[in-house]
Amino acid sequence: MFGAIEAGGTKFVVAVGHINGPDEPPRIIDRAVIPTREPEETLADVLDFFRRQSEKRQEALAALGVASFGPLDLDPESPTYGAITTTPKLAWRGFPLKKRLEAALTVPVAIDTDVAGAALAEATYGAAAGERDVVYFTVGTGVGVGVLSGGRIVHGIGHPEFGHLRVRRLPGDDFPGICPYHGDCLEGLASGPAIRARAGRPAEALSPDDPAWAPVADALAEAVTAVVLLLAPAKVILGGGVMKQRHLFPCIREGVRAKLGGYVAYPALMPGPEGLDAYIVPPGLGDDAGLIGAFELARRALAR
Amino acid sequence: MFGAIEAGGTKFVVAVGHINGPDEPPRIIDRAVIPTREPEETLADVLDFFRRQSEKRQEALAALGVASFGPLDLDPESPTYGAITTTPKLAWRGFPLKKRLEAALTVPVAIDTDVAGAALAEATYGAAAGERDVVYFTVGTGVGVGVLSGGRIVHGIGHPEFGHLRVRRLPGDDFPGICPYHGDCLEGLASGPAIRARAGRPAEALSPDDPAWAPVADALAEAVTAVVLLLAPAKVILGGGVMKQRHLFPCIREGVRAKLGGYVAYPALMPGPEGLDAYIVPPGLGDDAGLIGAFELARRALAR
Repeated sequence: MFGAIEAGGTKFVVAVGHINGPDEPPRIIDRAVIPTREPEETLADVLDFFRRQSEKRQEALAALGVASFGPLDLDPESPTYGAITTTPKLAWRGFPLKKRLEAALTVPVAIDTDVAGAALAEATYGAAAGERDVVYFTVGTGVGVGVLSGGRIVHGIGHPEFGHLRVRRLPGDDFPGICPYHGDCLEGLASGPAIRARAGRPAEALSPDDPAWAPVADALAEAVTAVVLLLAPAKVILGGGVMKQRHLFPCIREGVRAKLGGYVAYPALMPGPEGLDAYIVPPGLGDDAGLIGAFELARRALAR
Repeated sequence: MFGAIEAGGTKFVVAVGHINGPDEPPRIIDRAVIPTREPEETLADVLDFFRRQSEKRQEALAALGVASFGPLDLDPESPTYGAITTTPKLAWRGFPLKKRLEAALTVPVAIDTDVAGAALAEATYGAAAGERDVVYFTVGTGVGVGVLSGGRIVHGIGHPEFGHLRVRRLPGDDFPGICPYHGDCLEGLASGPAIRARAGRPAEALSPDDPAWAPVADALAEAVTAVVLLLAPAKVILGGGVMKQRHLFPCIREGVRAKLGGYVAYPALMPGPEGLDAYIVPPGLGDDAGLIGAFELARRALAR
C-alpha cells in the first residue's frame, strides 16, 4: 500500500492506495482532507491518518509520496533536503517535511513540488500519458510550472519558478501587473488575482469576450513559446483555476503559432487537431493530478 | 581510438584521439580541417581522414561523435534520425549525416548539435566540470543554446532554438532587429550581424563604452533570466565570438540580478565572486569545446 500527500497552503489531501502497473492509475482506497494550520498540528493529523489506515487494513505503507507547496529545498545533497524554504507562511518556513514524515513513518518518502507532481501524473496517466518531455503550467492564485525531461523531473539548483518569467508585453497594454517582486511578470499578468485586479471582477465573472482576456492569453502564449524554444516538449498542459476558462486555449494556441513565426516547423506546432490543438491541452486528471503525482513519486521512491 | 567531427557550415574539424577517463580531456592524436562544400565531396574527405588515420596507426575507430550544425533530426525513432533538416544550405537539406558515416565506417556514431556538444564538453572537462545541469549559449553569427539536465542533453520533439526567444525589449530601444523570422528576437538583437547592423561597424571594432552594447547585454540578460527561472541550472556558460567581448559579462550578471528582483535567492545568484561571477561564465575549453564534445558523444555511444 502506498501513501500520498498533496500538501497545499490551505489543505493537505492525504490518501492510501494500490498501484497495479504503469497502464492504470493508482487505485485510491481511502482519502481525507486536513486543513493546513501550524506545522506540528497539521503533521499530527497527517500521521494519524496513515497510522489508522495501516491498522485498519493490516497493511504497512511501502512508501510515501508528497507533492507539496513550496518553495522546497530539493537538493539531495543539502542538509535541509525536503524542507519548505522561504514561504510567506512563516510558521512553515524551514519545516523539514520530508525528514519528519520519514522519521515518524519509517518508510521511504519522496517529495517534489505540487506542480511537478501534476506534471508527472499527467505524463504517466493523463493528457500526456507515455510522453517523457512534458511541461505543466498551473494558472490560479499564482502561476507554477513543472518540467519533465526524458521522464525525469527537472531541477537544477532549485525548482522551476517560471511563473515569474518577464514576458514581452502586448503592445499598448500598460496594466502594471500585481507581482510584488516584478509587477508585470507572467504571474503578475495572468494569475487569477491579476485578472481580478485588471477587470475589477473575478475571472469567473468575466464573459469570454471580455477585453481583459486578450493580455492574459498573450502572456501565457509568450511563456509557452519560450518553453517550446528552450525544451520543445512533446506536450504542454495548462491547468489550474484560470484555465477552466476553456476559451483561452484557442487564443493561446494562435498566439504561440504567431510568435513562433514559422521558425520551428514541427507538425505538432501547426494549427489544427493533429497540431497545436493536441499540443497545448488541458489536464486529463482534473483536480486529482497532484495526488496521483504523489503516488507516482512514492512508486518511484520504492523502485530506486 | 575515438573519432570526432565538429561539423560547421564553413568547415568540418575532424580528429582522432584517446579518452583515458572522466577526469582528463581526450588526448587528440591528430586533426584536420576540411572546408564545407557539397555533402558528397565533404563526406569523401572526412571518410578519407578517418581511414588514413586507422591505417597509419593500425588502430580501428571504436566510435565516432559528431557535433553538427543544424537543424538536425534528433528523434531516435524517426526514419531520418541524424539527418540535417531545414538548413538554408540547400545542398545539405535532408542529408543523412549520421547514417552515411555509420554505413561507411561501420562504428557507432552519435550525433548532436554543435552547441549541445559544447555544453557537454564544458560540463565534462570545462567551466562547468562535474555539473549535471548546465546551459550553454553561443553568441556569434547566430545564437545557439545547448541544455544539459541531470547530465543528459535535452531534446523534446526537437533541439533547443532558444536563440529565437522573444525577449522583453529595453525601454526606448526601437532597433527593429535583423532576424528574418522574428525581427527582434534574441538572435535578431544580440548576434554579431545584429550588432553590426545596429552600430554600422562590426562588434570587434566597437569600444566597450559604445552605446550599442547596452541593448545586447540586456537581451542576453533577459534570456539568461528566463533560463534560470525555468531550469535553474548550476552554471550558465556564454561563448561564441560576441562573448569574447569580456566587458559584456558584468553587464549581463547585473542585468540578471536586477531582472530576478530578489525572487530566487540562491547563493549562486547573489552578486560577487562566489555568486553570479562564478555562475555566468565564459567557456573553459575555448574553441575546442565542440570537438571535445564530439569525443564525449563518441565515448557515451560506446558506453551504451
